[in-house]
Amino acid sequence: MTTRAELTEKIVAHKTFNDIKWADVAKEVGQSKEWVTAALMGQISLTKEQIEKAGNALKMNFSDEEVALLMTVPYRGSLPTAVPTDPLIYRLYEVVNVYGTTMKALIEEEFGDGIMSAIDFTMDISRTPDPKGDRVKIVLDGKFLGYKTF
Amino acid sequence: MTTRAELTEKIVAHKTFNDIKWADVAKEVGQSKEWVTAALMGQISLTKEQIEKAGNALKMNFSDEEVALLMTVPYRGSLPTAVPTDPLIYRLYEVVNVYGTTMKALIEEEFGDGIMSAIDFTMDISRTPDPKGDRVKIVLDGKFLGYKTF
Amino acid sequence: MTTRAELTEKIVAHKTFNDIKWADVAKEVGQSKEWVTAALMGQISLTKEQIEKAGNALKMNFSDEEVALLMTVPYRGSLPTAVPTDPLIYRLYEVVNVYGTTMKALIEEEFGDGIMSAIDFTMDISRTPDPKGDRVKIVLDGKFLGYKTF
Amino acid sequence: MTTRAELTEKIVAHKTFNDIKWADVAKEVGQSKEWVTAALMGQISLTKEQIEKAGNALKMNFSDEEVALLMTVPYRGSLPTAVPTDPLIYRLYEVVNVYGTTMKALIEEEFGDGIMSAIDFTMDISRTPDPKGDRVKIVLDGKFLGYKTF
Amino acid sequence: MTTRAELTEKIVAHKTFNDIKWADVAKEVGQSKEWVTAALMGQISLTKEQIEKAGNALKMNFSDEEVALLMTVPYRGSLPTAVPTDPLIYRLYEVVNVYGTTMKALIEEEFGDGIMSAIDFTMDISRTPDPKGDRVKIVLDGKFLGYKTF
Amino acid sequence: MTTRAELTEKIVAHKTFNDIKWADVAKEVGQSKEWVTAALMGQISLTKEQIEKAGNALKMNFSDEEVALLMTVPYRGSLPTAVPTDPLIYRLYEVVNVYGTTMKALIEEEFGDGIMSAIDFTMDISRTPDPKGDRVKIVLDGKFLGYKTF
Amino acid sequence: MTTRAELTEKIVAHKTFNDIKWADVAKEVGQSKEWVTAALMGQISLTKEQIEKAGNALKMNFSDEEVALLMTVPYRGSLPTAVPTDPLIYRLYEVVNVYGTTMKALIEEEFGDGIMSAIDFTMDISRTPDPKGDRVKIVLDGKFLGYKTF
Amino acid sequence: MTTRAELTEKIVAHKTFNDIKWADVAKEVGQSKEWVTAALMGQISLTKEQIEKAGNALKMNFSDEEVALLMTVPYRGSLPTAVPTDPLIYRLYEVVNVYGTTMKALIEEEFGDGIMSAIDFTMDISRTPDPKGDRVKIVLDGKFLGYKTF
Amino acid sequence: MTTRAELTEKIVAHKTFNDIKWADVAKEVGQSKEWVTAALMGQISLTKEQIEKAGNALKMNFSDEEVALLMTVPYRGSLPTAVPTDPLIYRLYEVVNVYGTTMKALIEEEFGDGIMSAIDFTMDISRTPDPKGDRVKIVLDGKFLGYKTF
Amino acid sequence: MTTRAELTEKIVAHKTFNDIKWADVAKEVGQSKEWVTAALMGQISLTKEQIEKAGNALKMNFSDEEVALLMTVPYRGSLPTAVPTDPLIYRLYEVVNVYGTTMKALIEEEFGDGIMSAIDFTMDISRTPDPKGDRVKIVLDGKFLGYKTF
Repeated sequence: MTTRAELTEKIVAHKTFNDIKWADVAKEVGQSKEWVTAALMGQISLTKEQIEKAGNALKMNFSDEEVALLMTVPYRGSLPTAVPTDPLIYRLYEVVNVYGTTMKALIEEEFGDGIMSAIDFTMDISRTPDPKGDRVKIVLDGKFLGYKTF
Repeated sequence: MTTRAELTEKIVAHKTFNDIKWADVAKEVGQSKEWVTAALMGQISLTKEQIEKAGNALKMNFSDEEVALLMTVPYRGSLPTAVPTDPLIYRLYEVVNVYGTTMKALIEEEFGDGIMSAIDFTMDISRTPDPKGDRVKIVLDGKFLGYKTF
Repeated sequence: MTTRAELTEKIVAHKTFNDIKWADVAKEVGQSKEWVTAALMGQISLTKEQIEKAGNALKMNFSDEEVALLMTVPYRGSLPTAVPTDPLIYRLYEVVNVYGTTMKALIEEEFGDGIMSAIDFTMDISRTPDPKGDRVKIVLDGKFLGYKTF
Repeated sequence: MTTRAELTEKIVAHKTFNDIKWADVAKEVGQSKEWVTAALMGQISLTKEQIEKAGNALKMNFSDEEVALLMTVPYRGSLPTAVPTDPLIYRLYEVVNVYGTTMKALIEEEFGDGIMSAIDFTMDISRTPDPKGDRVKIVLDGKFLGYKTF
Repeated sequence: MTTRAELTEKIVAHKTFNDIKWADVAKEVGQSKEWVTAALMGQISLTKEQIEKAGNALKMNFSDEEVALLMTVPYRGSLPTAVPTDPLIYRLYEVVNVYGTTMKALIEEEFGDGIMSAIDFTMDISRTPDPKGDRVKIVLDGKFLGYKTF
Repeated sequence: MTTRAELTEKIVAHKTFNDIKWADVAKEVGQSKEWVTAALMGQISLTKEQIEKAGNALKMNFSDEEVALLMTVPYRGSLPTAVPTDPLIYRLYEVVNVYGTTMKALIEEEFGDGIMSAIDFTMDISRTPDPKGDRVKIVLDGKFLGYKTF
Repeated sequence: MTTRAELTEKIVAHKTFNDIKWADVAKEVGQSKEWVTAALMGQISLTKEQIEKAGNALKMNFSDEEVALLMTVPYRGSLPTAVPTDPLIYRLYEVVNVYGTTMKALIEEEFGDGIMSAIDFTMDISRTPDPKGDRVKIVLDGKFLGYKTF
Repeated sequence: MTTRAELTEKIVAHKTFNDIKWADVAKEVGQSKEWVTAALMGQISLTKEQIEKAGNALKMNFSDEEVALLMTVPYRGSLPTAVPTDPLIYRLYEVVNVYGTTMKALIEEEFGDGIMSAIDFTMDISRTPDPKGDRVKIVLDGKFLGYKTF
Repeated sequence: MTTRAELTEKIVAHKTFNDIKWADVAKEVGQSKEWVTAALMGQISLTKEQIEKAGNALKMNFSDEEVALLMTVPYRGSLPTAVPTDPLIYRLYEVVNVYGTTMKALIEEEFGDGIMSAIDFTMDISRTPDPKGDRVKIVLDGKFLGYKTF
Repeated sequence: MTTRAELTEKIVAHKTFNDIKWADVAKEVGQSKEWVTAALMGQISLTKEQIEKAGNALKMNFSDEEVALLMTVPYRGSLPTAVPTDPLIYRLYEVVNVYGTTMKALIEEEFGDGIMSAIDFTMDISRTPDPKGDRVKIVLDGKFLGYKTF
C-alpha cells in the first residue's frame, strides 16, 4: 500500500527531476499556486477532475489507488515534529514563538477579543525586488472571528 | 527580585486598566506599534531614552531594576509551551504546521534554496474592511538569504 | 502483514473513491452512523455478521486476515500525536484545553464530585440550519459516575 | 505580584468555603453560567462592570491589581499539561482522542471540508434524569466554517 | 497565598515529625486509611467536619484559607511528571507499562469490551507475612463498565 | 523479517478469529493465564516446549524464525506511548497517577522505606459478581524490598 | 515555607563555602559517604539522631521545619529533566543509553531473565591512580532478582 | 534494504535459537564479551576480520550488505525512548536519576571539577556469589577529565 | 519506493565497504568536503552534474529515482531526536546547552543585538597535531545579522 | 533564598545598566572573556579570589550567600528547554541538527571512531571584518578522544 506521505515524496521528486513549476500545475488546475501546492503536498483534497489536470501538467499517470488518496480529505499537518527542524520552516515558527504575544496584543487592541481564522483564510507568497537583496513577502489574510458572550 | 515576565504582566495589566493604546506608546517612542509592543512584551531590548518615553506614555515610573530589565537583550521566546494553547496564537502555529511545506516549496521555486530571514524582517498587522466581516492582514517581510556552497 | 491502521486507510480511500456514505453503511449494519464510523475507523470491534454487512455496503470483500483485524478489540486511540495537528480535531482539543476546568467546575457543582463516563456514553453529530451559516451540533451524553468514599 | 492563576485559585477556594453557586454569580453578571465560570476560571476577560457584579455575588472585594488581571484578555489554556491528569477532564480528552477521526469523518461527510468553530461557539452543560443514573449532557454548538479554495 | 501542594507538604512533614499514623487519622475521620490519606495528599475533597477531625488527629490547626483548600475539589494528579521518578511509584507504572496489554486481553476475554472503573473503585493495601520476606498486597477493585453500541 | 510486535498482532488476531481462550492456552502450557498471556503479548520469553504447547492450543504452526522471536528475552514495555491512550489501560495509569503518592505513603508507613517488587511479583485478575454490576478485581502481590543503608 | 530542594541547595552552598568534606560528615553520621551524601542531596530520609550528627559536622543548626523535611521519605529523583544536561551526569546516562542493551544481554545470559535490584543495592565511588591520568571507578552492586513464572 | 536495527534483531534471535554464548563469540573475535556484545548490538563498528570471526562463532553467513552495516560507525544509542521501559535497563536509569547528583558531588570532591569519560572507558559485568542471592556487579571505569580554564 | 533516509544509509554503507574518502568525492564534485558530505548525508540538494560526479567517485550508479531524490531540496534535519543520543554529536549539543548563553552574551556585546547566520555560513573541520593528543578544530563562520528596528 | 539563576539575572542586568564589558571583567579576573562570562552565567565555579576580583570589576558587593553560590560547582545547562527558543542560540542548535551527521562523518574519517571532548575544550569568539557584512567566527577546539576496545 502507498501512503499519502509516500505519494507526496513521489510527486515532489518527479516534479524536481522534470523541472516542472508549481505555477504551471496551478494554471492547469485553475487555482492559485499556493492552493494547488498545498493540495499536492497532502494538505487539501482534490476532485477527480483536478487530479486529472494536475496529472497532465505533471506528466504523471496516477493509479486508482493514488487518485483515491488525493481525493480523501487528509489528516492535516505537514511537519514530522512539533518544532520544525527545517530552517526555512523554523524561521516561520520562530516568528510565531517570538512575536506571537505581540500579534495577539495588536489584533485584540484593533478588533477586540477573537482570532484570525485559519480556515476562511488565504495566503500569498511573492518576491519583492530590493537592491540590498530581494525579499520574501508572505501575506496572511484571514477573517476576524470575535468571541461571543453566551 | 522582579523577573522580566512579571514586568511584562505588570505593564499589560496597567495598560488595560488605564485604557492606553499600543499605538500611542509607539508614537511617543518613535517606532512602529509592532516593534514597541514586541519590546514591551519582552522580546526586544530598549534604550534608556526609549524606556523613559514609554514610561511617560504608559504613565508608569519604572524603577532602576525595571529599567535594567528592559535594557537587557532578552532570552527571546514568548510562549510557555512549544505548541501554543492560546487560540489566537495557535491559529498562526496551525498555518505553519499545515502550510509550512507549501511555503517552503514555493519560496524555493521562486528564489532557489534558502530561507526568509526572521532577523532582517518586519511585520505589519492591519485591518481590511470587508462586508462579510473584517479581515486581519498580517504581512511578513523578510530578506531572502540563499544557501552558499562552501 | 496488514495492520489495522493500514486497513483503516484502505477503507476510507475506497469509500471516498466510490462515493459511499457512512450513513448507508450504518443502515446496513443496523447501528448509528457514529458507532459504525468509529468501528470502521479502528476504535470499536465488530462481529463477523456486522463485518459482512459493512463489506456489502462498502462493496469490499474483506479477506480472513482483514476480518480478524476488524473483530479484534483494538488498542484505542485514533490520533498520531498527543496534541492533534488536524484543524477540525484540534478545535475539539482546544475546547477541552480552554474550557476543561469550566466543565469540571459546573459538573461538580451540579452532581457532586465525579465524572461523565466516556464508556456508558453516546454522541450525536448533526447539522443545525442557521441563516448566518449552518452550525455543527455535537451532543456528548454520558452517565454521571460519582466518587465513592471507601 | 499576584498572577492570574493565583487569583483563580483564590476565587474558587473562596466560593467553595462560602458555598456560593456559579449560577448565582452568573445571574448577577447577566450571562450564562458557562460563560461566567469560564471567565472567572481565567479564560475570558471581563469588563469593570461585570467584575463589580461578580465581586458582589461572590462577596469579594477585588483590589485594583485584581481588577486589572480580570480585565486583561488572558493567554488562554486552562490545563497544566498537554494530556490532562484530572479524571473528569481526561474523559473529555479521551473522547477527542478515541472518536476524533470519527467526528472528522462525519462532519466532513455532512458539510464538506471544514471545521466546527471553537470561537463562534457556545456550550451548554445540563443534567438529564435517568432511572439508571442521571446523565451529563454536554452540547457543543459551533458554526461550520468551510475551507475556501484560493 | 498557600497552594494545595504546599499544604500537602506541610501536612506530611508535620505528620512525620510528630510520628502520627495515617490509620489513626483515618479512624478519627471515620473512613478507610486509603481514602483519608488520598484526601490529605490532595486528591479528594473533605467536608468541614472531616477537616476538623483530621486536624484534631494531626494536632494541626488549619486556617480558614487552608480549610478552603481542603474543601475544594482538587485538580487530580499527584505526580510531577508523566513517568514517575520515585522508585516505589515507578514500579506501579512499570506494571501498567509491561502488563497493561495483558490486563486488557484478560479483562476483555472475561467481561467483553469495556473497562474497570477508576471512579466506582476502591483499593486496599495490606501486608502479607511471608517467611521469604513479607509481601505488599494491593487490591484494585472497580466496577466493570461495558461499552454500549449506540 | 517478522518483528515481535507483528507476531503479537498475528497471534491475537488468529485467536480472536478462531475464538480460542487464553485460559485454554494457559492450561496447555501449564502456567497461569496471566503469565501465558503476558508471554504471548511479547513481555516474557518462552521455552521451545512451551512454544510448541502454545502453538497446539492456538492451532498455529510457528516457523523457526517465529520460535526464535518467542524464545528471546524481549525488550519489555507493551505500550506505544508513555501515557496510554487505550481507555482500559489508561484507567490503570490514572490509578497510579492519582493514588500513587497515597500508595507510597501507606506502604512506607507499614513497611518502612522501600518498594513493592515488580519482579518477584504476581498478579491475578478475576470477576466478582455484584448485583449492582460485576466488578473487576486485580490483585498485585509483590515482595517488599527495603532500602538498605550502605 | 522551605522546600526540600531549597534545603539541599542551602546545605551544598554552606558546605562549599566552609570547605567541609562529605567524608567527614559521613564519619560523624556513621554511614558510608555515598549514603550520607545521597541523604543530604534529598534522596534518602534521615533519623533525628542522624540529622543532629550531620548538623554538627556541617556546623549548621537545622530548624524544626528543616528537620521534618530531612526526616520525610522523599519523592525520589534528583534531576530536573528526563535527560540530564549536566555533563558529568549525562556521561552516566550515555552509558545506559549506549550500553543498556549490552548490559541486558550479558546479565540475562549469566543469570537468566531478571534484573539487578536498585533497592538492595550499594555503590562505591573511588579513584584509581593511573600514570595516563587517574580514573574514576564506580561499582554498582545489586542483588539479582529473577522473574518468577506465576 | 536491511537496517542495522533489523540486523541486530536477526543476530540476537539466531543466537538465542542456537544457544550460542556471547562469551564464545568474544573469544573467537579476541575482545572482551562486553565489547563484542556492544558491537553486535549495534553500538560499535567492527572490521572485516572481526565480522568474519563473529560470523563463524555465530554460524551465520553475513551478506556483503550486512558486512557493510557492521563496518559502519553507527549512530549510537540503543534505546527506543529517552526513559527506558525495559525493567532491567530502567533500574540503571533509576540509579542515574536518583543518585546522579550524589555521584557528581563525590566525584567533584575527590577530583575537582570535571567528568568521568564515557569514551576512555571500560565496563565489566560479573556475578558475585552470595548466600542471600547472587549479586550483579557492574564496574564502570573511566578516565577523569578535568575542566580546564581557558 | 526508496526514501531519502534509505538512500543516505545506502551511500554511507557503500562508502565504508569500499573504503572511499569523502575528500576524494569532494574533489571530484569540486566543492569542499564539508559541503559534499552534508549533501550526500541528505541536507543539501545536488545538481544532475554533481550527482553524476559523486556517483563516479563513489562507484555507484544512481537510478533516476535516486537522482530525483538527490536533486530535491530536502526537509533539513539530520537527527532522529531533539536531543542527540550519539556521543560525538551530543558533545556538540552539550556545547550549545552549556555555553549557549555565554556565546549569546559575547556576540551581543561585540556586535549588538542580532545573530550569527546559519545560512550565509561555512564550516571547516580540521586536525591540529598536539603532543598531548591531537585536537579537533571546528570553525563556524557566519555573517552577523543585526535586528532592525521597524 | 537566592538561587543561582536569580543571581545570574542580577549580574547581567547590573552589567547592562552600568555598561560594563565582559572583557573588562575578564581582564580583572585574569582569564579569557569566554571563561569568565561562562562562569558568571552560572556554568563554571569560581574561587573566592576570582569572585572578589569579578565583584570589583562589576562594582557589585556579593553577600556571603552569593559568594557560596558562585563557588559551588553548578548543575550545568544554561537553557530552559531542550530546543532553544532564542534565535541566536537556536542557530547554533540548527547547525548541530542539520550538520551533526556531517561533522560525525568527517571527524571519524580523519581520526577514527571517537569524539571531540567538550571538557578538554576551549572556544574563541571573534569578529572578522568583511565588506559584505562582518562575520562571527566561533572556534571550537577540543581534544580528540578515541574509543578503546576493551
